[in-house]
Amino acid sequence: MALKKKPVTGMKDILPAEMEIRDYVIGLIKETYRSFGFSSIETPCVEHIENLCSKQGGDNEKLIFKILKRGEKLRLAEAKEEADLVDGGLRYDLTLPLSRYYANHSNELPAPFKALQMGSVWRADRPQRGRYRQFMQCDIDILGEPSNLAEIELILATTSLLGKLDFNNFTIRINDRRFLKAMAAYSGFEEKDYDSVFITLDKMDKIGLDGVAAEMKENGYAEESVEKYLQLFKEITGDVEGVRACKEKLQGFLPEDAADSLEMIITSVESAKEADFRMLFDPTLVRGMSYYTGTIFEISMDEFGGSVGGGGRYDKMIGKFTGQDTPAVGFSIGFERIVMLLMERGYKVPTSKEKKAFLIEKNMPKEGMLKVLDLAKKERAAGRQVMIMNMKKNKKFQKEQLAEQGYTDITECYRDSVDNI
Amino acid sequence: MALKKKPVTGMKDILPAEMEIRDYVIGLIKETYRSFGFSSIETPCVEHIENLCSKQGGDNEKLIFKILKRGEKLRLAEAKEEADLVDGGLRYDLTLPLSRYYANHSNELPAPFKALQMGSVWRADRPQRGRYRQFMQCDIDILGEPSNLAEIELILATTSLLGKLDFNNFTIRINDRRFLKAMAAYSGFEEKDYDSVFITLDKMDKIGLDGVAAEMKENGYAEESVEKYLQLFKEITGDVEGVRACKEKLQGFLPEDAADSLEMIITSVESAKEADFRMLFDPTLVRGMSYYTGTIFEISMDEFGGSVGGGGRYDKMIGKFTGQDTPAVGFSIGFERIVMLLMERGYKVPTSKEKKAFLIEKNMPKEGMLKVLDLAKKERAAGRQVMIMNMKKNKKFQKEQLAEQGYTDITECYRDSVDNI
Repeated sequence: MALKKKPVTGMKDILPAEMEIRDYVIGLIKETYRSFGFSSIETPCVEHIENLCSKQGGDNEKLIFKILKRGEKLRLAEAKEEADLVDGGLRYDLTLPLSRYYANHSNELPAPFKALQMGSVWRADRPQRGRYRQFMQCDIDILGEPSNLAEIELILATTSLLGKLDFNNFTIRINDRRFLKAMAAYSGFEEKDYDSVFITLDKMDKIGLDGVAAEMKENGYAEESVEKYLQLFKEITGDVEGVRACKEKLQGFLPEDAADSLEMIITSVESAKEADFRMLFDPTLVRGMSYYTGTIFEISMDEFGGSVGGGGRYDKMIGKFTGQDTPAVGFSIGFERIVMLLMERGYKVPTSKEKKAFLIEKNMPKEGMLKVLDLAKKERAAGRQVMIMNMKKNKKFQKEQLAEQGYTDITECYRDSVDNI
Repeated sequence: MALKKKPVTGMKDILPAEMEIRDYVIGLIKETYRSFGFSSIETPCVEHIENLCSKQGGDNEKLIFKILKRGEKLRLAEAKEEADLVDGGLRYDLTLPLSRYYANHSNELPAPFKALQMGSVWRADRPQRGRYRQFMQCDIDILGEPSNLAEIELILATTSLLGKLDFNNFTIRINDRRFLKAMAAYSGFEEKDYDSVFITLDKMDKIGLDGVAAEMKENGYAEESVEKYLQLFKEITGDVEGVRACKEKLQGFLPEDAADSLEMIITSVESAKEADFRMLFDPTLVRGMSYYTGTIFEISMDEFGGSVGGGGRYDKMIGKFTGQDTPAVGFSIGFERIVMLLMERGYKVPTSKEKKAFLIEKNMPKEGMLKVLDLAKKERAAGRQVMIMNMKKNKKFQKEQLAEQGYTDITECYRDSVDNI
């Protein structure tokens, strides 16, 4: 078989310039989240196929890279369907593996547990510009904390990080699954229709109020319900006043404390935030995953024109592993999108290291070589980054290339002047 | 299907205590190698099955986790053998993907190119204590540098890193494939038998000179050759004198510059090293991979009782992709073994962050909450790591747990004394 030079379809090789930004962002993420008390953890990239296909992953379950059974377990002749051939798959997110991890280790972890995960996930999506089949996710989650302190800390930590990367003017849109349900119930929709109603509502951004109304009527819902429903969105404002209006209007449909809790989150974040952004109560925010049970939130950034992160409360997932529900909230940032935005901006990593290069003449005798190595050692000890290279024929071009890489202090080392290097 | 709490066979969940050490070591590795002029790069974890099965990986090719084709490409009914079902696999090392990467991107990279890779690799080995099916590898490679400056820098960078992690008293054993061949030729073995001879020689550590002699005779080699061969190992010393003796003895069998080059590497490293270790010329060092073409080396550490890293020159691999050979040398450290040794030692990450916790009384009103959030923000700005928690019923136990995590400065926040927090 011929060897292939390109990476596999939809995945990418990362060049040094991008890697420098990635490494810097990874370092900053770890440092920032640690300062909020989060601890790094890791799960294997390979997950049980049973867990990946357990309906926790929505559409992502259609995109799994599946791993062939090995040795005697693989019985090709007897295999009738795909499921007979595989026993694992590459994880498509970090939330499902975290739930398994917590179920497996909760007695070894503090309660509540604040987890930080950075790792690759894989989805066999149709390849398109800027979207890859392997990409890094960066999630923080608080497990075992039922109060909205969890939401407040997740939003503060995430936005503090974005601020440190010079992102401003972004918006955190927030809503609550319980608000979504209460508004649907209040308008007279039946519970069995909620999911369909929310799918249409989710298009508000793109098709507007009229478009949503038209689609709902097309789907056969009572005109009265649709109008009552949409009237809500016309009235409700995107601030704590909007939350209070919901509380009053949705009495009997909304759990007692839901509105107060959401108001508290918005007020607290506005008060304690470390970055320049705004919080918006958005009753049309749906977020696709069916596992969310309460608060949901998303980061919108004008320069990206879409979401660069999001999350929410999923109090029922860990219970699927343990039989006992555990409160859980998570916030995931779109690491790849953030890196892309930084690259587009021409972001320069704030690096404090000076770069020093030594060019060594061809056939330098031992004494000269040892002298250069010794000097390089001293330069590194003084905190510099040091490149030693053999001198090329085209020295001018070599020095230009080094300068491009940031090596402006270049020493040429010749055999005749070893003592003067 | 029931959900599974344990990770997949042979792979592990990483708990916060280990993760703290891993994160620290990763940071130190990147910083150290960067100071020697290496640049981070990354390749996808999934590699073309054609590349993985191209006989570059030796026995590792038997251990590949293979990935099922997707969609229409998977034709289960027509599949006759495993190869019909798969189009990719998880990489088993970082050297093969690096060669593909360099072949794909050499015109975008400086020459020579100094690459740093840290990433997971997968091998479906029989699970055993301390060996996992997913593990981190950490490789530095210099591509496009034919001279021994590459070997010198790789060994200096790697040993400097180990020194920073307080490893001392280790040994770098060094040899050269060309020495191995010259010694076999000198002793009268035929070229077709070299591999078999080296397999036996590689057991010197375990079975000694007599064992090696016995096995070789058993394998049917002429007594005269075996004795001439083993006499060499009795005579040659593990220092530059040994290298010089080889040069003299193996004249006509060893390329002109091979011995001088090896002597230069040993002398330079001894002279410029930043850590406390010794270099040993070990003519019995074989290293398994058949792709090595020149220098080979390995780190031995008494406290581990085996190799914690190694590498060598592989000047022919990139040519398999491009049709044109490119000089290449790499040094891989056993990241997992190093972390294991540090854990066993009870290694404490040198962390400068103070840890501060706030415990909040139940039903704290808004003003109190905002006050605590504001204080936490100030503490973080002052460089501290801050944990905010709701106060538990068993406050004493909670504080003990926090103390265990390093939070010794704990402030209790009550509604009645908000102003005094």
